[in-house]
Amino acid sequence: MKVGDLATPALLADAGVLERNVATMAAARPGPALRPHVKAFKCTSLAAVLEGAGHHAFCCATTREVEGMVSAGIGADLLLANEVLDVRRLAALADLAGNGMARITVAVDSSETIAAASAAGITEVLVDVDVGMPRCGCQPGEAGSVADTARSAGLHVRGVMGYEGHMMHEVDRDTREEGVARSMAILARAADEVGGDVVSGGGTGSFDCNDTVTELQAGSYILMDRDYARLELPFEEGLIVSGTVVSVGAGGHAVLDAGLKALAMDSGPPGLMGGGTVLFCADEHTTIVGGNWVVGDRVGLRPAHIDPTISKHEHIHLVDDITSGGDAEVLETWPVDLRGW
Amino acid sequence: MKVGDLATPALLADAGVLERNVATMAAARPGPALRPHVKAFKCTSLAAVLEGAGHHAFCCATTREVEGMVSAGIGADLLLANEVLDVRRLAALADLAGNGMARITVAVDSSETIAAASAAGITEVLVDVDVGMPRCGCQPGEAGSVADTARSAGLHVRGVMGYEGHMMHEVDRDTREEGVARSMAILARAADEVGGDVVSGGGTGSFDCNDTVTELQAGSYILMDRDYARLELPFEEGLIVSGTVVSVGAGGHAVLDAGLKALAMDSGPPGLMGGGTVLFCADEHTTIVGGNWVVGDRVGLRPAHIDPTISKHEHIHLVDDITSGGDAEVLETWPVDLRGW
Repeated sequence: MKVGDLATPALLADAGVLERNVATMAAARPGPALRPHVKAFKCTSLAAVLEGAGHHAFCCATTREVEGMVSAGIGADLLLANEVLDVRRLAALADLAGNGMARITVAVDSSETIAAASAAGITEVLVDVDVGMPRCGCQPGEAGSVADTARSAGLHVRGVMGYEGHMMHEVDRDTREEGVARSMAILARAADEVGGDVVSGGGTGSFDCNDTVTELQAGSYILMDRDYARLELPFEEGLIVSGTVVSVGAGGHAVLDAGLKALAMDSGPPGLMGGGTVLFCADEHTTIVGGNWVVGDRVGLRPAHIDPTISKHEHIHLVDDITSGGDAEVLETWPVDLRGW
Repeated sequence: MKVGDLATPALLADAGVLERNVATMAAARPGPALRPHVKAFKCTSLAAVLEGAGHHAFCCATTREVEGMVSAGIGADLLLANEVLDVRRLAALADLAGNGMARITVAVDSSETIAAASAAGITEVLVDVDVGMPRCGCQPGEAGSVADTARSAGLHVRGVMGYEGHMMHEVDRDTREEGVARSMAILARAADEVGGDVVSGGGTGSFDCNDTVTELQAGSYILMDRDYARLELPFEEGLIVSGTVVSVGAGGHAVLDAGLKALAMDSGPPGLMGGGTVLFCADEHTTIVGGNWVVGDRVGLRPAHIDPTISKHEHIHLVDDITSGGDAEVLETWPVDLRGW
């Protein structure tokens, strides 16, 4: 099957880019030194590619992601790297762990999240530490007491996690390195207080400048996006939303049948494969200018942010070359089976 | 069931607001004077509410929306208000129309879209006219010849459509009225050239200043969003994404488990119910400041753009009062059954 045979909009991943990006990261962060974050791609078939590259521990952001990974039999060691208070949902994970389906660890940062994990029958946790981005995580000075509370509740504390997300997209290399170092110094001190052997954190943007974590939580690197591409990392962009030109205006603008319901817009509008400019995105359409398109052409849009773009789609089509428009060969079609909550 | 029992993030619609908005529009545009656009809400249960208010003709943006409406038995007269070249998909609609399941009309704006409709067995079309926004639609001066081409291909031309989308969110009332009038003058001339009895167009923002169309294509009015709320229309905001506070930082910031995968960001970040400010949205989280939240609180986020927010969710929960947090009663839960492509 060719890309030209697919109904549009269609999400396409470049097989060669995927292979190279996975290999580049596996060389830098082999096996357990990487805990790939499935929130970036929400697809167990893609997770299986990473397992094939030697990574057997994974990060998840939602309980559904954890359950889906267990169902697919991928990942011996799954970390829910997020605070969850929903005891029913946590109990379902505890059952899976209790049945020996996978090792499941949950992030906690407060007495409330510890109480929820404990009530649900969760047995293993990481203490999530705020390392400078105002999101989840306890204050660094409280990490030791959070760990004590968890242990008092009968939980095994495997170590700490802390995400230096405020530095992840910093374009200037020196600024990024310095910021990552400051955050990781905080995390290292918290790790000393907490104990355990896991120090989890980092991401695509700090993959080669975070020497503190024992496992890197990166996901976007596998197919990248426009936002990360600004950092000049050794990973290539390999994901596009393919649209069909359904109308060409007198002034030369063309209209694709792929709009902002198919593309994340939080980090800006998409770029265009093969030249030209995006004029604007509407719900179901993108108007493009600066090229010579005809009705029926297949045109690729390069998303600014990979995670929420993929989560809008039901399928990812693996193709032999995303630059070749409708003539590209569709090698495999994978369900985005971990989306939703 | 209470909102506090729902897993989060959860999409909530206010039953009273929905009822009042639907009634206000039905009074202004009764029965066939409104062709509600299901792309805004992608939910046949909501479409059924509109049918109950006397509207039996609907707009769709995708073939899946048309098929879903037919499956649900809602809408005697369905307009695919979009250009589609995919003959297989159009043929599926033609089969439904041929079997008497619904009257199905398709927008065309070129010889290519006419050829696709004709090849698929579609029998009825509207000529889509560019009335000033660079998106789909033929040039106004070509509308007559497009209609001739369609008739030569054996298609029944019911009339014209043209969307003045570039004026739809114009906040200044006078500017909006003038712009709508300019666009509709273009559409009226094209209608004279094309013939037929349908002049379709407009939207929520022009509901009371577009006197040209025989049927208004509005959808957002039913639950509104922050972007449309700036226009001071007589419709209320009635849709929120409900999140749970999963973490509270030392500085007083709180973190909700609802982020940009649950909220459209193309028209800006969400607002907050009950005071406080959104600091930023991440994939799975929203950090909020300026309130006194505790872990476990339910907090509502008001989306900036309704259409792509709803399309991210599997369900809409109809509640008795979106302002009452976790104590609100869940009256009904409706699948967002028309999402995807």
